[in-house]
Amino acid sequence: MNQPDIKLLFEPTSVAVIGVSQEPGKIGYKILQNMIEVGYTGDMYAINPKGGEALGHTILKSIEDVEGDVDVAVIAIPARFVYDAVVSCAKKNVKFLSIISSGFSEIGNLEEEQRVLEYALAHNMRVLGPNIFGHYSSKVSLNATFGPRDIKPGNVAIITQSGALGIAMIGKTAVQHIGLSAIISVGNKTDIDESDLLEYLIEQEETKIILMYIEGIQQGERLVQVLKQATQKKPVIVIKSGRSKRGAVAAASHTGSLAGSDKVFDAIMKQCGVLRAESIQEALEWSKFLSHTEVPDGGNSIIITNGGGVGVMATDACEKYDIKLYDDQEKLKETFESVAHGFGSTKNPVDITGEATKDDYLKALQEALVDDNIKSVMALYCETAMMDSKELTDMIDEMYGQYKEQGKPITFSVFGGEKTEAAINILHKDNVPVFRDVYDGVSCMGALHRIRRTQQQGSEDYAQVQIDIDAIDRIVDAALADDRTFLLAEEGQGLLKACQIPGPRGGVAQSVREAVDLANDIGYPIVMKVVSRDILHKSDAGGVLLNLDNEEEIIDAYQTIIHSCKSNVPNAVIDGIEVVEQIKAGAEVILGGRRDANFGPTLMFGLGGIYVEVMKDVAFRAVPLSQTEIRSMIKEIRSYPLLLGVRGEARKDINSIVDTLVKVATLINLVPRITDIEINPMVVYEQGQGSRAVDIRVLISDDKKDSES
Amino acid sequence: MNQPDIKLLFEPTSVAVIGVSQEPGKIGYKILQNMIEVGYTGDMYAINPKGGEALGHTILKSIEDVEGDVDVAVIAIPARFVYDAVVSCAKKNVKFLSIISSGFSEIGNLEEEQRVLEYALAHNMRVLGPNIFGHYSSKVSLNATFGPRDIKPGNVAIITQSGALGIAMIGKTAVQHIGLSAIISVGNKTDIDESDLLEYLIEQEETKIILMYIEGIQQGERLVQVLKQATQKKPVIVIKSGRSKRGAVAAASHTGSLAGSDKVFDAIMKQCGVLRAESIQEALEWSKFLSHTEVPDGGNSIIITNGGGVGVMATDACEKYDIKLYDDQEKLKETFESVAHGFGSTKNPVDITGEATKDDYLKALQEALVDDNIKSVMALYCETAMMDSKELTDMIDEMYGQYKEQGKPITFSVFGGEKTEAAINILHKDNVPVFRDVYDGVSCMGALHRIRRTQQQGSEDYAQVQIDIDAIDRIVDAALADDRTFLLAEEGQGLLKACQIPGPRGGVAQSVREAVDLANDIGYPIVMKVVSRDILHKSDAGGVLLNLDNEEEIIDAYQTIIHSCKSNVPNAVIDGIEVVEQIKAGAEVILGGRRDANFGPTLMFGLGGIYVEVMKDVAFRAVPLSQTEIRSMIKEIRSYPLLLGVRGEARKDINSIVDTLVKVATLINLVPRITDIEINPMVVYEQGQGSRAVDIRVLISDDKKDSES
Repeated sequence: MNQPDIKLLFEPTSVAVIGVSQEPGKIGYKILQNMIEVGYTGDMYAINPKGGEALGHTILKSIEDVEGDVDVAVIAIPARFVYDAVVSCAKKNVKFLSIISSGFSEIGNLEEEQRVLEYALAHNMRVLGPNIFGHYSSKVSLNATFGPRDIKPGNVAIITQSGALGIAMIGKTAVQHIGLSAIISVGNKTDIDESDLLEYLIEQEETKIILMYIEGIQQGERLVQVLKQATQKKPVIVIKSGRSKRGAVAAASHTGSLAGSDKVFDAIMKQCGVLRAESIQEALEWSKFLSHTEVPDGGNSIIITNGGGVGVMATDACEKYDIKLYDDQEKLKETFESVAHGFGSTKNPVDITGEATKDDYLKALQEALVDDNIKSVMALYCETAMMDSKELTDMIDEMYGQYKEQGKPITFSVFGGEKTEAAINILHKDNVPVFRDVYDGVSCMGALHRIRRTQQQGSEDYAQVQIDIDAIDRIVDAALADDRTFLLAEEGQGLLKACQIPGPRGGVAQSVREAVDLANDIGYPIVMKVVSRDILHKSDAGGVLLNLDNEEEIIDAYQTIIHSCKSNVPNAVIDGIEVVEQIKAGAEVILGGRRDANFGPTLMFGLGGIYVEVMKDVAFRAVPLSQTEIRSMIKEIRSYPLLLGVRGEARKDINSIVDTLVKVATLINLVPRITDIEINPMVVYEQGQGSRAVDIRVLISDDKKDSES
Repeated sequence: MNQPDIKLLFEPTSVAVIGVSQEPGKIGYKILQNMIEVGYTGDMYAINPKGGEALGHTILKSIEDVEGDVDVAVIAIPARFVYDAVVSCAKKNVKFLSIISSGFSEIGNLEEEQRVLEYALAHNMRVLGPNIFGHYSSKVSLNATFGPRDIKPGNVAIITQSGALGIAMIGKTAVQHIGLSAIISVGNKTDIDESDLLEYLIEQEETKIILMYIEGIQQGERLVQVLKQATQKKPVIVIKSGRSKRGAVAAASHTGSLAGSDKVFDAIMKQCGVLRAESIQEALEWSKFLSHTEVPDGGNSIIITNGGGVGVMATDACEKYDIKLYDDQEKLKETFESVAHGFGSTKNPVDITGEATKDDYLKALQEALVDDNIKSVMALYCETAMMDSKELTDMIDEMYGQYKEQGKPITFSVFGGEKTEAAINILHKDNVPVFRDVYDGVSCMGALHRIRRTQQQGSEDYAQVQIDIDAIDRIVDAALADDRTFLLAEEGQGLLKACQIPGPRGGVAQSVREAVDLANDIGYPIVMKVVSRDILHKSDAGGVLLNLDNEEEIIDAYQTIIHSCKSNVPNAVIDGIEVVEQIKAGAEVILGGRRDANFGPTLMFGLGGIYVEVMKDVAFRAVPLSQTEIRSMIKEIRSYPLLLGVRGEARKDINSIVDTLVKVATLINLVPRITDIEINPMVVYEQGQGSRAVDIRVLISDDKKDSES
């Protein structure tokens, strides 16, 4: 297939609206009206079989009647007519279809959506929607939506899965003086999804911030890759509803997309460096702030306040939002000695007291501006009689200007009555970062510093190792041929071997002599188990003996096992006796790999037993991932100190956990037919002593699903 | 002492302002001006040794020159003159001093503050402050502050420890149309503290909501008791800064009050039924909503929305804020079938779709209003073309009126552009609960339902048991006489016995016969230990034997121990051999009692070992407390499922944990000289099998501190 460049969707030279009626108020009419009044820079065509005229444009009876080329066709006709329109578009060599119409998969009409999609793709057309309000692109002044007309051009791009919310967000951004570079409604995402759009927006110069409202993810594997690239260049903010269990159910019933486990989603967004907002309000505040602020080159922040109480609150908020407060007491004293009045404080928060005038604020903020150790500033103000509304406005305006010029981030949180309110309203119009509550300002600063850390960390090569794919394929083939969706114990052991994950050492002996040799080779204590397909419950049949400590005990055990099994299961064919290393105690961990319905391959790690079952103390990541990401995953669990050694215990062999996680990640990434793998427990010994995978559980499926996608 | 009724502070018949200069702008002048212009209903006097006239009032040279009585003297003169003024006030029989002046303990001038306080208390005067902006009381139109003049009378009472924040809050409440019944600045809290004020505000009719800004607690024990009473009658909202470790340090440096561990504070506020707000914004939004809303008689809530996306977000928020969503699918269908359009949903969230008009909203909300199963409603609206600003305003206004009349709580979260913004601004003035973000509305509804649960739960008798105080006193006396601040192991065992907390059973044998009898009585296995003050390291001396299973082993052990000890420590005097029950394995828990610097007696519970040390999985409560509170404390820990039994284990004897916690609570409550007690581990057996306190650590102090307070 020869797919058109997604750039054409955002920067078309010509757009046709299919379904423009002469009657004002109808959707097609409204879209044309928006395009005309906003002043789309390209050519516009109105299409309707009935013909006529609308808004000074002749309505053509078919898109095929258009003389020039058409890059984008906006289709706003009832669902049952869409297919025919798409056929016409193909004849006209249209590149992108923006299908506004609803009545497809969102109401269960999957076949028609599929039919339209297949035809479009087969004719080199890509599809936005269906079930959308359209899209806006500031670059060519294109408002091809039936939403509000007045969109302030700017540098925030919005991708929304909810139409209603998207339209409301257009209004909301206008109220909040947030300018948009684009807003795109993705609806049913039958073809074009967030990843396609992100790839364009990452590179597009006008866009500084990308804000996404997501209800469900389908092609999560690709999204993760694209998000990781995106966040290295621009802040990406995500709102995903369906956090709660009940919310997830509501989301599923809403757009028919299955929302995955929120814990996995949340972990993966963090891994990608995405800022996840809880509410729309928070997302918009971050967007506005980040779109006007440069990322600082260090973490040291400072709070300057005229009230102790709000200073303490800001300090609390800094902990919540993970902001590092500058802590060099001597330098702080040097810098702020001259501005911290009588009962004030030069510590951070720097308290310039309720006596502080406009000049005091100017002086303190200027000191912070020129101090290179201070990378960002949060200024707080409690209304006093020392400044009137005009002075407050002027002070903030002046300081913001100076900070912006130097590229040093600053927020102002101001708290008071009518005077303060008046100042806020004026400053908001000029996009000065002034907040009504301490927490809101600090939350924005926290978002900025998370972006800084993501970008400073950079991207790293993915960790992957050599595994024996051929051997694994043979194991999976055999199990599938056996009509199973899981691997047997021996097959699981084979898988471990193919991945070079150490399990208990051992072998099968056919004679007492072989058993003794094996045992001597492995080292004591030893466990011995009967090998027989006729004996299902080995222990019950007397087929398992533990704690064997020397040659004599091995010899005894060999004979005892044969004897017991023969008398308990008379006709059993005994294939030999397994001689295995008896696992010593150590820290028990659980390692999992899973092909997530939404995100593709994912990795899970936690401490075993109670910690995973009761405390739910586990970490998730998307695969592939780097060594650093694996280490951060291990550190993330609350019980991590147990691996470092507590109560006089030695540090555990964390490197061997990392190694094994790399192997599990490689396996789940490269072998699509393995859908689930869980090593539980893996016993981890002291540093340098390695670990042993004691038990492994593997689920498989034929790879139809994978080849389909 | 014959203390005046705190009511007089809020409802004085006469107020003198000491320190009124003739010069406008000075603090005393400003206070008098506020009192005059707000129209205080009682008699006002201006005092200044310089005399003269201000604002039409003759300035008297001394308070003693006032002809009538003076209930409250507001003192606004430099700190060094305050004492003399207080002496004059005593001569005039003043009841309350509101000491505005700063320069006392907040800058380290403790002695002067103490001198003033002692004189005042000795002369039956109570002190508000010092270091405050004053107080306001709507009941008598008294604005005795130097803050903003215009305070809207209403039903929210504010108590604030921060002056700057308090003044700013006056302005902020005005902007947000929140009416106040009182605002009181408590400053250094040298005498009158939150508890004194709460006692009045609980009973005062005008006050419906109490909002407190706290930086540090001193008399926490009393505060807990008063808060528990208060929350049964009115919502109490607390903002306490210093949540973070660094914030706590900042708070301490600010007002000199030591902020306690935030985890303890937070747990105790929950225990008291207090709503703790994170930010001022949240606190004010709760205050406004709760002050206009009745507490419903049940939890079933419903979400009505015209947009699926915001519906899902509201569902998420309901989980966060612990709101029960009505779940009877059949009844929901019955109620809302007629209003859920084509693609809508009658499930909760009830989705009336983007096609919903004003009439559709009216109909849906009316259905919810008349349905008795539905106890509260959250209405959501995403801006569409179906309603203009006027229709939206009218719809909300009308519905709010109907809901208010029936006493059914409702919130509106509306989301959109200029039209919606216009509606919000109009509705806010009328105190209609309209919110700009879904989370804000749900947060308010969540606060309401927490209040409901607190009030429905009611208050319960405190759990307390008989303990042998005399025996405990004797143990503590002996240890103190020995100049120790801790109890020895034997003393700890004595304490357990005095509280009837079961430890390992045992006794001291003086002969082999006695040892055998004891062992038979206790049951096997048995541990035997030498008793000798000369042998410190009993194990090293061969003085401890474990795992003794029968009479013969007891006889052998007796002789072995005597023999080993005599040969290892030749001159040791052996007082006997202790014969003790050997503790069987079980769940290990930790129980603690502590005299907290801020809150007095507190109780702690958690699972022992790793769970407390690494996972920090513990719960706190203030003492005294009820059985229900103790049970909720046990359930609160994350590892609670371990006590219920996981992985096939039996349920543990939770009743025996409750019993022991009651005993520890009683002990820490009734014996002030015990400052710390920690039973760790206590081994808990299966249900009905009880528990054993294995180890106990007790710290003591002479009770000077206690008798002082």
